Amino acid sequence: MPNKVEEFNAYRQQMNDKILNENNKILKRIFNLDTNAFAEGGALDKKTKELLGLVASVVLRCDDCVKYHLESSYKQGVAREEVMETLSIGTLIGGTIVIPHLRRAFEYWEALEEAKEE
Amino acid sequence: MPNKVEEFNAYRQQMNDKILNENNKILKRIFNLDTNAFAEGGALDKKTKELLGLVASVVLRCDDCVKYHLESSYKQGVAREEVMETLSIGTLIGGTIVIPHLRRAFEYWEALEEAKEE
Amino acid sequence: MPNKVEEFNAYRQQMNDKILNENNKILKRIFNLDTNAFAEGGALDKKTKELLGLVASVVLRCDDCVKYHLESSYKQGVAREEVMETLSIGTLIGGTIVIPHLRRAFEYWEALEEAKEE
Amino acid sequence: MPNKVEEFNAYRQQMNDKILNENNKILKRIFNLDTNAFAEGGALDKKTKELLGLVASVVLRCDDCVKYHLESSYKQGVAREEVMETLSIGTLIGGTIVIPHLRRAFEYWEALEEAKEE
Amino acid sequence: MPNKVEEFNAYRQQMNDKILNENNKILKRIFNLDTNAFAEGGALDKKTKELLGLVASVVLRCDDCVKYHLESSYKQGVAREEVMETLSIGTLIGGTIVIPHLRRAFEYWEALEEAKEE
Amino acid sequence: MPNKVEEFNAYRQQMNDKILNENNKILKRIFNLDTNAFAEGGALDKKTKELLGLVASVVLRCDDCVKYHLESSYKQGVAREEVMETLSIGTLIGGTIVIPHLRRAFEYWEALEEAKEE
Repeated sequence: MPNKVEEFNAYRQQMNDKILNENNKILKRIFNLDTNAFAEGGALDKKTKELLGLVASVVLRCDDCVKYHLESSYKQGVAREEVMETLSIGTLIGGTIVIPHLRRAFEYWEALEEAKEE
Repeated sequence: MPNKVEEFNAYRQQMNDKILNENNKILKRIFNLDTNAFAEGGALDKKTKELLGLVASVVLRCDDCVKYHLESSYKQGVAREEVMETLSIGTLIGGTIVIPHLRRAFEYWEALEEAKEE
Repeated sequence: MPNKVEEFNAYRQQMNDKILNENNKILKRIFNLDTNAFAEGGALDKKTKELLGLVASVVLRCDDCVKYHLESSYKQGVAREEVMETLSIGTLIGGTIVIPHLRRAFEYWEALEEAKEE
Repeated sequence: MPNKVEEFNAYRQQMNDKILNENNKILKRIFNLDTNAFAEGGALDKKTKELLGLVASVVLRCDDCVKYHLESSYKQGVAREEVMETLSIGTLIGGTIVIPHLRRAFEYWEALEEAKEE
Repeated sequence: MPNKVEEFNAYRQQMNDKILNENNKILKRIFNLDTNAFAEGGALDKKTKELLGLVASVVLRCDDCVKYHLESSYKQGVAREEVMETLSIGTLIGGTIVIPHLRRAFEYWEALEEAKEE
Repeated sequence: MPNKVEEFNAYRQQMNDKILNENNKILKRIFNLDTNAFAEGGALDKKTKELLGLVASVVLRCDDCVKYHLESSYKQGVAREEVMETLSIGTLIGGTIVIPHLRRAFEYWEALEEAKEE
C-alpha cells in the first residue's frame, strides 16, 4: 500500500518524465542543473547543501520543495534536531506566515521516519 | 460530523502540539509571540489587530493564515462587510493573483457562519 | 462525469458569483478590470496577453491563475510548444521553486487536451 | 530646502502624472481604485484602512508603499505607539527579513514628525 | 557624460564579469541559460519573449530586471503602447504594490528614449 | 574614512537602537530571537547557520539581510568558494530574478575583504 512518501515521489517522477519528454532545452538544462547543484563535490558537503535547499524552500513556502529536501536530508542522515533547527531558522526569517508550511513539513518528516520503519 | 472549521482546527492543533513537543526554543518562542501579538492590550484593539493579521495573510497568499484570522475575526464579532472590505484592500494591494485565495477565504467565512448556526 | 477542467471552472464560477453578490465596489471593479485587461483590442493581441498572464502566474506560483491562463491560451489556439516555452521562461526567471507548479501546469494542459477529445 | 518627505512626494507626483498622461485605461483605473479604496466611507474607518495598507506594505516589503501609508496614517492622527504596533505585527508575520524595511519605515516616520515641526 | 542607461549597463557588465571569473559552474550555466532563453529561435519570437521577461520582472518587483528587459524590448522595436500595456497587465496581476516599480520603469523607458536621441 | 561596510553597520546600529528604544515588546523579542538563533550552540554549528541565513536572504532578495549574513560568515572564516556555492544554490532555487542581488552580494563580499586589508 503506497504511503505519503511513495505517492509524492511517484507523482513527481511521472510528471518530471513527461515534462522532459517535451524536449524543451531550457527546462531540461534547469532540471539537470538542479541535480548537479546538490550532488557530492564542491566547496560544501552534500548535507550542508541539502539544508540550504531546505531552508530556502521553507522561506519561499514551497511545500513540495520542502518535502523533496526533507527526504534528501533524511537519506543523508541529517538528525531530527538538525532539521528542527533548520526549520526554526526558516520560520524566524520567513515569519509566522511560514507556520502552516512548518506543520506540513513536520508531518512529512514523520512520514519519512514511518516509511523507514515499515 | 466534523465540518471544515473543525477539521482545520483539529489538524492545526495536533501539529502545533507535536512541533512544540520537539522543544526547539526558537519555535516555542515564535509560537508564543504569535499568541501575544494578537492578544487584548497594547495600542490597538484586538479587532483591529485581527484585521491587520487578515490583510497581511491575504497579500502573502497564505490560505491557512487567512482561515485562522477569519475565525478570530469572526469570534471578535467583525461584520461581514468589514471582512469584505479588508479582503478587497488585500486584493487591490496584492493584485489579481490574490483572487483564488479570496475565493477560498469567502468559502471559509461561509463555513464559519454555518458552523455557528448548527 | 465532470473532469478536472469542468470541476475547476464550476468552483471558480460559483465562488466568483457569490463574491460579486456581496456588492463590494472595489472587488467588483477589480474583477471587471481583469476581464478588460485580457480582452481583444489594445496594443498587444489577445494571445500575447494570455501568455503574459500565464508567465506572471507561473513566477508568482499561483496554480489556479496558471490553470485559468492555460485554458484561455488553449482556447486562443496557442500551440503546445509555445506554452512549454512560456513555462520554461517562467521557470528560469522564478527558479527551481517553480518546478512543482510546472508539474501541475503540465498536468492541467493535458487535461485541457483530453477534455477537447472527449 | 526640500526634506525627505517632500522629495519623496515630488518624485511620486511627477511620475504618477507622466504615467496617467499615457492614457492607458487599465493603469488609470487602478490608480483611481487605489484612491477610492482608502477614502472615507465604507465599513471600516479611514484610519483602520490606512493601518491595513501599512501592514500589507510592510509584509510585502515595499518601502515606497510603506512611506505612503505612513504619511497618510500620520495625517489621520495615528499615534506613534499605534504605528509601532502595526509595524511589529508586520515584522512578526513577515519575519526578520522585514527588519531592514522596518529601519527605513522608522526613519521616515521620524522625517514626518520633523517635517511637521518645521 | 554617462547617462542612467550607460551607468546601469556598466555596473551590470562589470559585476557579471567578476562573478563569472569566480568559475562557479552553476552560476556560469545559469547566466548562459539566461542568454539562450531570450535568443532568437524557438516557438515564440524574440519580441514576445522580451515582453514575457518584462512582465515577470514587473510582478516579481525586480527593478534591475525590469530595466534589462525594457532595454532589450526597446532594441527590438517594441512600441511605447506595447510596453505600457505590458506594464499595466503586470500592475493588475501584481497589485498596487507594483506601482513604485512602475514609476521607476517608466523613468527608465524615458531614459532609453533620451539616450537614443543624443 | 568610512567604507561601505562601516556605513552599513553604522546605519543599521543607529536605527536598531532607536527602534528598541520605542519599547515595543514584540519587536524587542524578535530582535532578541534573531541574535539567539544564530548564536553558537544548538544542533548545527554557527558557520552552517550563517550559510542558512545567507541563502534564505538571497532567495528572499533582501540586500541588507544578505550583507549582514555575508559579514557574519566572513567573521566565521567562511571561504570565498563556500560563499559562491551558497549564492549559486540561492540563484538556482530563486531564479534569475536573484541575479541583481547576486551582483550586490558579490560587491559587498569584496568590500569585506578590502576592509580587512586596510
